[in-house]
Amino acid sequence: MSSNPVKIGIVGLGRWAKVLTRAAKKSDKFKIVCGYSRSEEKRLAYEQEFGISCAETMEALLGDPDIKGVILTVPNEHHLPVAEQVAKAGKHIYTEKPIANTLENGLSIEALQSRYDVQVMVGHSARLLKGTRMIKDAINSGELGRVAMIEANFSNERGLELTPETWRWYKDKAPGGPLSQLATHQFDALHFLGGEIDEVSSIASKLSPVGAEVDDQSLTFLKFSSGALGYVGSSWTSPGIYSIRVFGQKGLMHYELDFSTWDTPDQLHETSELYIQRGKDGFSKREVLTIPPGDMFRDELEMFAEVCATGEPGELSANNGNVALAVVYAALRSIDNNGACVKMQDIFDEAKAKISDQQG
Amino acid sequence: MSSNPVKIGIVGLGRWAKVLTRAAKKSDKFKIVCGYSRSEEKRLAYEQEFGISCAETMEALLGDPDIKGVILTVPNEHHLPVAEQVAKAGKHIYTEKPIANTLENGLSIEALQSRYDVQVMVGHSARLLKGTRMIKDAINSGELGRVAMIEANFSNERGLELTPETWRWYKDKAPGGPLSQLATHQFDALHFLGGEIDEVSSIASKLSPVGAEVDDQSLTFLKFSSGALGYVGSSWTSPGIYSIRVFGQKGLMHYELDFSTWDTPDQLHETSELYIQRGKDGFSKREVLTIPPGDMFRDELEMFAEVCATGEPGELSANNGNVALAVVYAALRSIDNNGACVKMQDIFDEAKAKISDQQG
Repeated sequence: MSSNPVKIGIVGLGRWAKVLTRAAKKSDKFKIVCGYSRSEEKRLAYEQEFGISCAETMEALLGDPDIKGVILTVPNEHHLPVAEQVAKAGKHIYTEKPIANTLENGLSIEALQSRYDVQVMVGHSARLLKGTRMIKDAINSGELGRVAMIEANFSNERGLELTPETWRWYKDKAPGGPLSQLATHQFDALHFLGGEIDEVSSIASKLSPVGAEVDDQSLTFLKFSSGALGYVGSSWTSPGIYSIRVFGQKGLMHYELDFSTWDTPDQLHETSELYIQRGKDGFSKREVLTIPPGDMFRDELEMFAEVCATGEPGELSANNGNVALAVVYAALRSIDNNGACVKMQDIFDEAKAKISDQQG
Repeated sequence: MSSNPVKIGIVGLGRWAKVLTRAAKKSDKFKIVCGYSRSEEKRLAYEQEFGISCAETMEALLGDPDIKGVILTVPNEHHLPVAEQVAKAGKHIYTEKPIANTLENGLSIEALQSRYDVQVMVGHSARLLKGTRMIKDAINSGELGRVAMIEANFSNERGLELTPETWRWYKDKAPGGPLSQLATHQFDALHFLGGEIDEVSSIASKLSPVGAEVDDQSLTFLKFSSGALGYVGSSWTSPGIYSIRVFGQKGLMHYELDFSTWDTPDQLHETSELYIQRGKDGFSKREVLTIPPGDMFRDELEMFAEVCATGEPGELSANNGNVALAVVYAALRSIDNNGACVKMQDIFDEAKAKISDQQG
């Protein structure tokens, strides 16, 4: 461990907090020193598993001047109120994706940064996947030439197992089903790989026999400012898929991984595939590339430690988190409008107008 | 050779006629006995290469009572007038894809069937690819469960090489660029795999530096009557891709081939890949399936021989050809309408109304 690891607190001590804490144990750049949950049972279980003491109140955790930043793994609708409390205490914020339950709340969280002179980071870890980084490097180096199209898919069988007792059953909690639950990760990855997104169009369907409120198939187009086009497909009634394919004038790269090892990211490279086709080479001449081991959760938390140490914004910014969320709302609008393209700017403008109305 | 192979003529003796004639040589179910082209040079070259005599006029070829059907490999805008001549002579018609240069002409070709008591077949050979057939078998047997989504892509680098001297440069000849030239093959394959198509939405972009009239990126959504959703992507500025992925509730199949061996379809299986993921299995548990050798061109011509022998319609019907073409026109309409979904029925109704107007 380095002599001066950044000290960090964590709020919300459920399954995901444990995944992140395990990742944190592998880093010497920061240290989770205090946890908090309203549930005493969860606090005790967390203390027992990780040997990290828990505060009995949020105020106690926020009152510790050594803690420079706080990780939030609380439910989406609590992101804004909890983030506001943390920001008021002058501490930096790491919140899980999506940045908030609504774009208005997401923008309000983003606004905490200038209001309280803190940084907000959103855990869109998927863009840190080694294969995705290697594709981005190939784009940046010019190896792929001008990017023309990006296709991505993120699917699983969740929609076959929904019950009215699960929050994902309901439209207001999981709008668009896999659109807000899976595709949104790819929206951030495509934003990372393809740059600014101007317009979105989307279609949806409901096929699962379970009878949930939410749609369970989601297909979305993105128009990038560069002129490139993107597609993100997401089925909630199929075997698991996580794939990204980037089409460039000089080369094409395809990345595919087995999502079933998502929670153990240091093993992801073992079941992943990344290949490149160059020039006029067809599928049979693809060159399989070696993906080094990685750990996107440790990496994102080390990014947060850097944010806490420097006070400078990180790559996984609140703004990027709001772009991913805005694509979801643009897609929902498009679905309601018979698939017509929706401008991202309109979605942002409307959310800002709503915030003004509420404040006025 | 069987005792009584069906005798067939061929009109238009360019590159594609040679590919088909080579495939025909491998079959004992039919025999190409006569060729015709307006170009004497092409007639001589064809006679020399294949030892098949050529007629000096269309009338001479059509006057041979032993010839039961005629293969057309003439330019798209000649399909209707030539097909009409052949139908009037009471012979069945095989025409290359697309069925015609416009949907009105395609529907007029389809109407030749009842008017002259002949059958029209369209060479949408891609649906005969062995991997595509294996996916269809798995759908039919219930192995994949209810189909939720189908993704397909057909891309190549053609858009980087266009010049004003090539017909694909122009919007009226190659509407939508890769949309009408590549994606249309996948529209037929998805129609085959997913069933009836109700609605289409599409976006496009132009990125190639050559400055052609046509767009060179095409992304299209299909809504099937079953509720399943489809996607077809087509870039004209990238390495070659031909892939189909079908997402079902019980399994997922992915097919990928190297298009560079398209003209030698008996070798396609060597550079192809087909795998299945079952149940909750992820990418790492996919089972690679063995694709048997095939020859889609011989297979489609044998289908045509069967049509000629029986007078019964074949799977690669004029109607299917018109559906693939109607998807192209629906996509073009959607692109003009900001990506909004367009009903296939509206496209068919409008084309029929235009035909009525012309006849009226």
